[in-house]
Amino acid sequence: MNDALRAAAEFLLSHDNYDILTHEFPDGDTLGSGYALCRVLRQLGKNARVITTSLPKDFVFLTEGIEEQSFDTQTVVSVDVADEKLLGCNKDKYLGKIDLCFDHHEINKVNAPLKCIDPHASSNCEILFELFTVMGIKLGKEAAACLYTGVSTDTGCFKYSNTTSKTLRVAAELLDLGVDAAPINKVMFDTKSKKQLMLEREVYDTLTFCADGRCAIIAVTRDIMNRVGVGDDGLEGLAQIPRMIEGVEIGITMREKKDGGFKISVRANERLVNAAQLCARFGGGGHAAAAGCRIEGTLGEVTEILKKTAEELL
Amino acid sequence: MNDALRAAAEFLLSHDNYDILTHEFPDGDTLGSGYALCRVLRQLGKNARVITTSLPKDFVFLTEGIEEQSFDTQTVVSVDVADEKLLGCNKDKYLGKIDLCFDHHEINKVNAPLKCIDPHASSNCEILFELFTVMGIKLGKEAAACLYTGVSTDTGCFKYSNTTSKTLRVAAELLDLGVDAAPINKVMFDTKSKKQLMLEREVYDTLTFCADGRCAIIAVTRDIMNRVGVGDDGLEGLAQIPRMIEGVEIGITMREKKDGGFKISVRANERLVNAAQLCARFGGGGHAAAAGCRIEGTLGEVTEILKKTAEELL
Repeated sequence: MNDALRAAAEFLLSHDNYDILTHEFPDGDTLGSGYALCRVLRQLGKNARVITTSLPKDFVFLTEGIEEQSFDTQTVVSVDVADEKLLGCNKDKYLGKIDLCFDHHEINKVNAPLKCIDPHASSNCEILFELFTVMGIKLGKEAAACLYTGVSTDTGCFKYSNTTSKTLRVAAELLDLGVDAAPINKVMFDTKSKKQLMLEREVYDTLTFCADGRCAIIAVTRDIMNRVGVGDDGLEGLAQIPRMIEGVEIGITMREKKDGGFKISVRANERLVNAAQLCARFGGGGHAAAAGCRIEGTLGEVTEILKKTAEELL
Repeated sequence: MNDALRAAAEFLLSHDNYDILTHEFPDGDTLGSGYALCRVLRQLGKNARVITTSLPKDFVFLTEGIEEQSFDTQTVVSVDVADEKLLGCNKDKYLGKIDLCFDHHEINKVNAPLKCIDPHASSNCEILFELFTVMGIKLGKEAAACLYTGVSTDTGCFKYSNTTSKTLRVAAELLDLGVDAAPINKVMFDTKSKKQLMLEREVYDTLTFCADGRCAIIAVTRDIMNRVGVGDDGLEGLAQIPRMIEGVEIGITMREKKDGGFKISVRANERLVNAAQLCARFGGGGHAAAAGCRIEGTLGEVTEILKKTAEELL
């Protein structure tokens, strides 16, 4: 890994005019990585900007103080992007043009001449922290807060098995750089809108079990979404619910798509079942503990498919 | 603090036959502290046992491998006990008999000749980790897991503002000692029984606001508890709910007592309101971010008292 980091460091120092690519439906790790790298590159006197498909309001703080820059792109870096098809609406523009790829996913399919991949890292931000250490960068409080956000969100606030002692030491260093972590964690983990609360209440009623209670499934139908008044972007936290239930090893959340069919989120006890393998059966992917896919069909049909698959795997 | 730790270390090494006292309604920190200290004292060849008012099933793993010992008590140590009256049913037996007191609460009223108090420590377990380091103890994996449980539960898994870089480094050391943290965190933070889920659903319906939405109150009445089929010990996680709601600075959970009146849990944005001060008005106490008290009266009366108090403070 150190060789890859040194190569990446050298590359970053000797290029300029950066577009930093994040994945679609961006989370704390891809955005934290993007804005941390952008801040560091600017600190080095470079031009840099982050390219996103969207910027959820909870993450706007990551961008504070970053002014717009106008330049012609010369260098393209991707952060936390496992596959070019995850670039969403930016895919066509950047396909085949990524120069340097940072990632921590087990399977990374990005086509780039230079890659820095560490599947043992809790998060892409943990890799970037190491990179900046190798580069001897003195991180500002804002860049440190970006990295903290990625490390914290990708580990469920240091709760999941991807948290190593190194992860905790990286977080300690970031706090020492002045990161005020509690308000970040409050927004990321401990804040719900009234609508989310109402949504949970509705979704609790859809809960079904299979495999002797070891698999739990909830469904967010368009009906429920209309009744509560939320769109597709208000549903993220729900995926944690089924796996939380005592005795459940596979927790599945079905979200009905606007155009029919379902987006499936799987959370699994990765010691028993690999969520990514389950989702791969339906053309999806992710991590052993958390993965996703899409399945076409009615609520009844898709539920049956999922139950059958879960029972096979357990 | 180092002097106090050294004095405590010397005391522990030169005494024997320990009763280790934990507080009533025991949590991960008091139990983690108790069983870690018990394990270390036994490792040193001493007799030691933990005295609890109860042992919730989620914490039974802390005791694994600790066999019963029969001895006459010679030395009494309290861990995470802020006041002798919090010893519950053990109060009468041990009142005035505590030799050494470890605690991290801001206000500690325990009467003991030797006290080791550090209100800057995230948890009592963080203090004990330091103590064991000063003593040069080689911690076993089981004692390390006890300490991890206390540090993790008292910080909301490193989420709250009491988490310092030192806290994170202590946790890193504990992982390096072999603690398998993810399963512990899963039980502590990410597990709900079906009954808890049903309870949440019911409690969502009792939600009321005051102070322009900056204070949220939920009520768990005996009616709800009977309907769902839970007792007083199944209610812990609920106290987090109201403070989670967007815009809420004071979250209050009212739990109707068997004999009438309410047990009140307050969670506050401690930068704006001190939960302990709010509860002190009613004879209770705790930390700035989380505190508790009891108020007599009907549901309507107590709700009004709480609303008035919250509006005064905000």
